[in-house]
Order: sequence, then structure tokens, then C-alpha cells
Amino acid sequence: MQIFYDPDISTNGGFLNEEEAKHCVKVLRHKPGDKIFVIDGKGSRFHCEIAETSSKTCRLTILDTEKAPAVEGKCHIAIAPTKSNDRFEWFLEKSTEIGIDKITPLLCKQSERKRIKIPRLERVLTAATKQSLRLWKPDITELTDIKDFLNSDHQEKYKFIAHCEGKDRKELFNELQKRDNHEDVLILIGPEGDFTKEEIETALSKGFQPVSLGKNRLRTETAGIAACMAIQLTSSYYK
Amino acid sequence: MQIFYDPDISTNGGFLNEEEAKHCVKVLRHKPGDKIFVIDGKGSRFHCEIAETSSKTCRLTILDTEKAPAVEGKCHIAIAPTKSNDRFEWFLEKSTEIGIDKITPLLCKQSERKRIKIPRLERVLTAATKQSLRLWKPDITELTDIKDFLNSDHQEKYKFIAHCEGKDRKELFNELQKRDNHEDVLILIGPEGDFTKEEIETALSKGFQPVSLGKNRLRTETAGIAACMAIQLTSSYYK
Repeated sequence: MQIFYDPDISTNGGFLNEEEAKHCVKVLRHKPGDKIFVIDGKGSRFHCEIAETSSKTCRLTILDTEKAPAVEGKCHIAIAPTKSNDRFEWFLEKSTEIGIDKITPLLCKQSERKRIKIPRLERVLTAATKQSLRLWKPDITELTDIKDFLNSDHQEKYKFIAHCEGKDRKELFNELQKRDNHEDVLILIGPEGDFTKEEIETALSKGFQPVSLGKNRLRTETAGIAACMAIQLTSSYYK
Repeated sequence: MQIFYDPDISTNGGFLNEEEAKHCVKVLRHKPGDKIFVIDGKGSRFHCEIAETSSKTCRLTILDTEKAPAVEGKCHIAIAPTKSNDRFEWFLEKSTEIGIDKITPLLCKQSERKRIKIPRLERVLTAATKQSLRLWKPDITELTDIKDFLNSDHQEKYKFIAHCEGKDRKELFNELQKRDNHEDVLILIGPEGDFTKEEIETALSKGFQPVSLGKNRLRTETAGIAACMAIQLTSSYYK
């Protein structure tokens, strides 16, 4: 059964948003009586029947609702968008499949990409959420300067900065073994040119632990996925 | 310093193969006296000085050699190529960065891609090997029918088949905790439509253990990378 996304479906009288309505009615040619799923990206999946359609609208009756509890032990990755949009979109898609809750695109000194298009990235996250049958859609924030990001408060108990140099680094995977299942994790992944010494020192002064992501050199988007996997494999599901 | 790839460089009198020679001399404009690295993809990295160049040739003097020992606890993934070439090439690139030793493209009943171009895929593996500073280049075989693959002998001690249904499946990551660092692993990853019941039964009869790759539904190429990461995180590096 097909899945549509509308964050407001349970509060707007059952009217599917315009984009999904057009896709539902004009492209997929659904009719009154057809059954579909709608997710709101906030844990609920509504089993619906199409009540009424027009060229731009689609009104649904909600038959029943499935709710997934909020994720415990959230994964927040703050990552410098890559120069190649494809690579960054690939990271968003894969991390959604594997399990991620929040992405903060970071603007760093060595960043190769200084502008991003959030609507486009939201579409990638929505498509990946539907495709992997998830009920929680990852959040993505606006591009954030790393200095401002480090100066803000972060609720995550475990905070890491992954970078390429330095003997003080521990292995992320080993450090994650120490956490309780429900404790949230935040990790910073730098641009291809890595974080600057100053950025690393500021992060350390704010309580971020320096970590390595294994013995190999990884591209930025691969580092993001590796961090995601390490966080998932040390979550409650595996305990 | 730039890295070139030539599997025969140590046995052919120092003549870089034609493709790399042209790239070195015509594109990158290297001259006699310049220093470069050449990897043979079989564990050696040669620090070389360019002795002589012409429009099609580049002769090197090997100054010194660095050797990496053979990987212990090899990772072999037999995976059905995806319909999208891009997605399969992403898998090859990412698995090379993370750590993989052998790829067998599989032809299954539900396969969406029944033909692949090995030279193209070899280029992807070569580029990823250079980019991630690896000294061992992953092997890739020709497209192999899964029936023939299951009928062959496999030297790997740990053999798994990842699929989407069934209560008998254990978690790959948990099963991998049992292995010794130096024991090789082979895992089968099916096409988007999954393996057929018959393919799974045949694999089980040949000693493959049925496994899951976590709680989420993953695309084929993501499953390949998830398996790769699970295998790396349970390797000797983390013990």
C-alpha cells in the first residue's frame, strides 16, 4: 500500500497537502474508496480511505492510527555539506535508512559548500523516510556556522568531534559502548579539509570528545554513515 | 604526493601502464625528477622518481617500498547489483573506504540487473583505493549465478545470508562477536525483491546462517555497507 507524507494530516480535516494530493490523484490515479497510508513524520502512521478527490485536493477518512514511540538514544550528526550535492544527498538518504534523528549542516572554515537548499534536502529525507518505512522523519536545520553551533547548548549527553589528526583520539565505537541505551549522542563531522585546530580546540573546551572513526581515511559523507552505524550498533536494539 | 595504480609496476622495468602514464605526463604534467607513489593493489606502495617520459610512456625508478601485510579476517560480500548503476558504484566506493576484500556480483532470480561492466567497476574500485590510501585493492569477480555460487566451495569460516523475512534470523552484528579476529567472513546480500525461498533454503543447506541487518528496512546497497561496517567493527582493530 502506498505511503504519503503530510505532517498536518491529523489536524487539518484530512486534506492531504497539495503536492501529495496531486501525486495521489493525478499521477497514481487513486479514487474514492482506495486505501493509502499517510505518515506525519512524528511517529504516527494513518491508515486512510480516500473520501473525495478533485484535481488539486484529496480528502481522507482516517480509519486507524499506528504510533511508534519516540526514539530513545537519539542520533544527531552535525556535518559539513560536501561540495558535491549528490554525495550529501546520498548521506541523508543512507543515514535515514540506517537511523538518524537530526542533521545540522555545518559551515566550517574549510567548508567547500557554503550554501544549501533546505527544501531539496527535505524532499530527500521525506523520500528516504517513506522508502524505509520509518515513522519518524529526521529533522534538518539550516546551515549553521560551527562557531555558533559550539556556543549553543546541546542536550546530548555524549558529544564527539571526529577528526583526522592527533593522538588523543579514541575510537568512537569503543567510547559508545559506555553509554546507556537511552542516552542521546551528538557527533561533529568536518569538511574534506578537516576541522581547523581552532575549531577542534573550541569543541574540546565545550566538552566534545575527540574521536577516530576507524583505521581508514573516510570521505565526509562516508564518515557520517560510519558514525551513524556505530551509534545504531550500540543502541538498545542490540542489547 | 600523487598516487598511481599499476599492478605490474615492480615486474615490468618500472614502466607505468599506458593509461596512468598518459594521465601522469599529459594531464598532470609531471617531469623527470618528480616524485610519485605507485600502488600495486597487492599490499605494496612504491615511492618512485620519474626517470624518463614520452607522450605515451613514463619510466620510473623505485626509491623505496612500503608493504602492508595481508588483511586478516577478510570481508567478502556477494551482492546482487542494483538496477541503478550509480547506486552499485556508490556501494563499491563506500565499501572500499570502510574495508572490503572481495565483491562477487550475484545474479539472482529477482535480480533487476542482469549485466554489469567489470572494467567500469574496476575503475571505481581503483579510484576508491587510491583516494582512501589503501594498499590492497578489493577484488571483484564476474557476475555469478547464485546457484553456481552456492554450489562452489567457500573458504570463509563464517557464512551468512541477509534477508528480510523469517523468525530464524539472528542479528549479523551479534553473530560476528563470536568470531576470532582473523577468521574470514562471507555474506550474501539479495536484490531489492529479496532472495527467493528456494535460494534461501539452498544457502541454509550449504551452511549459510540467516541474518538480519538491524531493525530497519535497507536498500540493497545500504545493506551491503551496513554489513561491511558490522564486519569492520568486529575486526581485530577494535579488540
